[in-house]
Amino acid sequence: MSILETIHSSNDVKKLRADELEPLCAELRTTLVETLSKTGGHLASNLGTVELTVALHRVYNTKKDRIVFDVGHQCYTHKLLTGRRESFSTLRQIDGLSGFPKPYEAVDDAFIAGHASNSISVALGMARARSLQKQDYDVVALIGDGAMTGGLAYEGLSNAAASGEPLLIILNDNTMSISENVGGMASLLQQMRIKPGYLRFKRAYREAFSRLPALYRFNHQLKERIKELVLPDNIFSEMGLNYLGPVDGQDLEELETAIRLGRDLRKPVLLHVITKKGRGVSYAEEHPDRYHGVGSFDPVTGEMPAGKPCYSACFGQTLCELAGKDPRVVAITAAMAGGTGLDGFAGAWPERFFDVGIAEGHAVSMAAGMASQGLIPVFAVYSSFLQRGYDMLLHDISIENLHAVFALDRAGLVGNDGETHNGCFDVAYLGTIPGMTVFCPSSFAELKAMLSTALYDKNGPVALRYPRGGERRYRECHTDAETILREGTDLTLVCYGDRVNDALDACEIMEKKGISAELIKLAVLQPNSFEQTLRSLKKTGRLLIGEDVCAAGCVGERLLALCEEKKLRLKGSRLLNVGSGLVPQGSVPELLRRYGLDGEGIARAAEELVGRGDRA
Amino acid sequence: MSILETIHSSNDVKKLRADELEPLCAELRTTLVETLSKTGGHLASNLGTVELTVALHRVYNTKKDRIVFDVGHQCYTHKLLTGRRESFSTLRQIDGLSGFPKPYEAVDDAFIAGHASNSISVALGMARARSLQKQDYDVVALIGDGAMTGGLAYEGLSNAAASGEPLLIILNDNTMSISENVGGMASLLQQMRIKPGYLRFKRAYREAFSRLPALYRFNHQLKERIKELVLPDNIFSEMGLNYLGPVDGQDLEELETAIRLGRDLRKPVLLHVITKKGRGVSYAEEHPDRYHGVGSFDPVTGEMPAGKPCYSACFGQTLCELAGKDPRVVAITAAMAGGTGLDGFAGAWPERFFDVGIAEGHAVSMAAGMASQGLIPVFAVYSSFLQRGYDMLLHDISIENLHAVFALDRAGLVGNDGETHNGCFDVAYLGTIPGMTVFCPSSFAELKAMLSTALYDKNGPVALRYPRGGERRYRECHTDAETILREGTDLTLVCYGDRVNDALDACEIMEKKGISAELIKLAVLQPNSFEQTLRSLKKTGRLLIGEDVCAAGCVGERLLALCEEKKLRLKGSRLLNVGSGLVPQGSVPELLRRYGLDGEGIARAAEELVGRGDRA
Repeated sequence: MSILETIHSSNDVKKLRADELEPLCAELRTTLVETLSKTGGHLASNLGTVELTVALHRVYNTKKDRIVFDVGHQCYTHKLLTGRRESFSTLRQIDGLSGFPKPYEAVDDAFIAGHASNSISVALGMARARSLQKQDYDVVALIGDGAMTGGLAYEGLSNAAASGEPLLIILNDNTMSISENVGGMASLLQQMRIKPGYLRFKRAYREAFSRLPALYRFNHQLKERIKELVLPDNIFSEMGLNYLGPVDGQDLEELETAIRLGRDLRKPVLLHVITKKGRGVSYAEEHPDRYHGVGSFDPVTGEMPAGKPCYSACFGQTLCELAGKDPRVVAITAAMAGGTGLDGFAGAWPERFFDVGIAEGHAVSMAAGMASQGLIPVFAVYSSFLQRGYDMLLHDISIENLHAVFALDRAGLVGNDGETHNGCFDVAYLGTIPGMTVFCPSSFAELKAMLSTALYDKNGPVALRYPRGGERRYRECHTDAETILREGTDLTLVCYGDRVNDALDACEIMEKKGISAELIKLAVLQPNSFEQTLRSLKKTGRLLIGEDVCAAGCVGERLLALCEEKKLRLKGSRLLNVGSGLVPQGSVPELLRRYGLDGEGIARAAEELVGRGDRA
Repeated sequence: MSILETIHSSNDVKKLRADELEPLCAELRTTLVETLSKTGGHLASNLGTVELTVALHRVYNTKKDRIVFDVGHQCYTHKLLTGRRESFSTLRQIDGLSGFPKPYEAVDDAFIAGHASNSISVALGMARARSLQKQDYDVVALIGDGAMTGGLAYEGLSNAAASGEPLLIILNDNTMSISENVGGMASLLQQMRIKPGYLRFKRAYREAFSRLPALYRFNHQLKERIKELVLPDNIFSEMGLNYLGPVDGQDLEELETAIRLGRDLRKPVLLHVITKKGRGVSYAEEHPDRYHGVGSFDPVTGEMPAGKPCYSACFGQTLCELAGKDPRVVAITAAMAGGTGLDGFAGAWPERFFDVGIAEGHAVSMAAGMASQGLIPVFAVYSSFLQRGYDMLLHDISIENLHAVFALDRAGLVGNDGETHNGCFDVAYLGTIPGMTVFCPSSFAELKAMLSTALYDKNGPVALRYPRGGERRYRECHTDAETILREGTDLTLVCYGDRVNDALDACEIMEKKGISAELIKLAVLQPNSFEQTLRSLKKTGRLLIGEDVCAAGCVGERLLALCEEKKLRLKGSRLLNVGSGLVPQGSVPELLRRYGLDGEGIARAAEELVGRGDRA
């Protein structure tokens, strides 16, 4: 029996002898590599935090104490230690273990995670609830240096410092966020890492403990001593936090001691821990970026199947072509240069490429400033992350009707990352932005054409929404607001973006069943008068639409309202979308099936619609 | 002729002799007090920045250089100096001068303002555009210490520091934001103010200049000297900004010299200026809070007409009553304790009251943490400012369906603050949040009842949206999702919130014209099956709805879609709302009239609808 097999909770971790800890960490790394090589997931960040997570479970009891993970994709070791080892192979699969902390899954998961920089705010709320209710548990926020670039983290830090609440904020500093960190905070951490405190800390700290073992909890003298040991004034201590560190994140003994001290100071404490992404697995250590989020790979060599062409790459390449001809074009990313396909741009035009860190709000406002002075800024961002910039879109971009382009990658269903990453709200929230044009390409060719149109043939803000992954069967290029792809008489099937592929599948199934569908593909969601669609609806009398967005503010609702307004009397209608809840994890085809948005689902709805419509 | 009358641009300010500047400042203060005593507006912050604004115009040319005001209500002196003195009496009136910077109004206004903390991001975007295009102008961000508590400002600072861009960030430190500042940054500034650098700066700085007058632009020796003069390491210099200050914000000579230096260093510079809100007018100096945003007042004594009962006060009082019976109830504000009616709560339960600074995102995430641990957090916030928390509502609150209450003050039309402050997007964006209940009280009695229901009879997130100001004619209490206030046969008039008053007015006008309207008031916008409304529509065949929200995602659209879905064939419909643009400034009655949402407008639409409907 391995050591890991004996572990089901924090308590079991605490029972281990000191000499069992290193072997446990080795077992954890093996499990991570073996499982993730099949399921995919976040490899490098989990490899880097094995010791840190073990140390946390040595000190805390996650049945009671609240450890709030920031972003949360580094929680795999935590899951393996808290009763989820046997189900670990279902990681990120439909109905399986989440790749993020999830309170519904286990009490050990204190809070949801996925978006960055919220952990300090959440943990502070918990700490305040604990103190007000005079309860007895500890609260920890575990936040990476990448997430520390987000303004939300700063708001949390500032408030936590002023609160006086016993709260431990662990800064997991792996010297890079998803891409490399940029900004003042990053260079500051860089300086702190090389200051002499780091080396001194370890030795002097242990010495202090050996002299005052029993008394340290309330011993003033020790606290003063500790002060001398750590770094001189820095940004954290100036904000009023008690700063400890930096500590070697691979040294279990030191970690455990430092966490215990941070806990026992009964104040807001920031503990600075240096970890190494990919630790212990050579290929991941060498290329932490490449092994950040992975699909399947060879566990021995790290080899991955060759990537397929994807919308992100198509976007990046097209933008490079446009930028080559026009020096006004600049590109912005919020720590996602690779994910959004901007790597090439960054290499070709470093002076026109701006990685602002995990700071989507700032990216939007900065784009506004650029647009107001004659540049054409293109901010490439995941759909669900642009939610952070909603107010800035309204305030900084829309009021002056500034011409900036928002390339919304990962729009619609994203698959295995689940609830927090699906881009199902953009159609609704972009719909409220005055003056906003929204394009939705259905093929690479359309993305290319629309990006150029967005830059040069439109005024004001323009968004393009395109899915994760690559093209499917549809490869044509129709950029008119509405295009009739198939003519038919029984019903009008409306689709946009990636859904055109399922709509085409559905049409074939319907054809076999003798249902004649008129298929309309939208290339522009707004502004759009929907003239052709309304004409088609007049003919067929039935509306069927498939969308990978939430029901509120969906295009189908707008079409129904338009029909009513124009007194266009439908025989029936059916809006297929993801409803009013949150879309769980699973592969995209599985999710499409579940929501009835795949070819079969759409065809089934068509059958019902035609049947129902005739009876009505 | 006064000095002020001779000033029409930065150039005119530059031409003044040194001995004319103090008299100019006195004239400016007199103009501010006289005009604002009639128009209302932001008094104290403008009084505090008279010298700073004059100094900026001595150094820069706002026809070309870009001064980005943060929040922007401190821009009045700037407007008076740039050709808008004669129209100054139209300040904040319909079709008059905006109370905020507005590029459409004058080229001197570099950027829109209203929401806090965006100026550094915008200015950095401008500076980058300037450098990339090799143009020759200067960029300044003018930000208050209050706005500095927002995470967006931190994101901007961090990026600006790393950029190396010539950019002057002026921290206008008046030692308080709208309410008093809270948080690590605030206490840090507090410390910086009392450090000895402040006094030394003035003398030594001038000395240095007198010795090296002509050379200073590129003189290394002076730069080193300057370094010694300013404070030792602080949060700004650690982030990589060149810190200058603090400087006395009422000393014109010192200000001008410091701004000039900040400009000429050709780096990202933070200049720390200490100002005093209300400066020069005794009542405003003594009570800067009370004279922050004012209506009309007596210019000599400062006396203001007694306030009328308002929704904010009713909310605050009710929350106090509930909190008195339940220790789990806590209140959160984002630097708006007074504005949201939470002053009483803050006094009664300081340990359960949390002012987080201008940090709406953090407020939402902290509320999530509190809710997850058993408290009942109530976050009172202006509707348009909660836009900053959209992502946190989706991610931190909704996914776990946490029970937190959001009290959206200033929902709908707010009047003279204009575009940036109207709360016309909340119905749409709250509509997308899974599990969110949205209440809309139409009277104080309803607000009281609904707040209690929100706290105790609902799960998950709950929002209440209520208007700025007080009750009007409707004072009843109907908290059912739908209430028929009047029966009728010709059309169904739907309303919610404050609009019920105009709907009642409209019904009386219609009655005189022989139109029989059935009036339905909504108390819950979602979830709502709209059963009664649909029944009524079946009877009358015509839908008329008046809403103070944007067209996208409005309730009217949902109702039309529902009619089409249920095959309820309307003879006609008319959705009255604020459309797809942004609502300008003006008094609320004026705006209602303009949008056809007042009693007469609604009655007019009814006439057309009945006429049109009968013909159809």
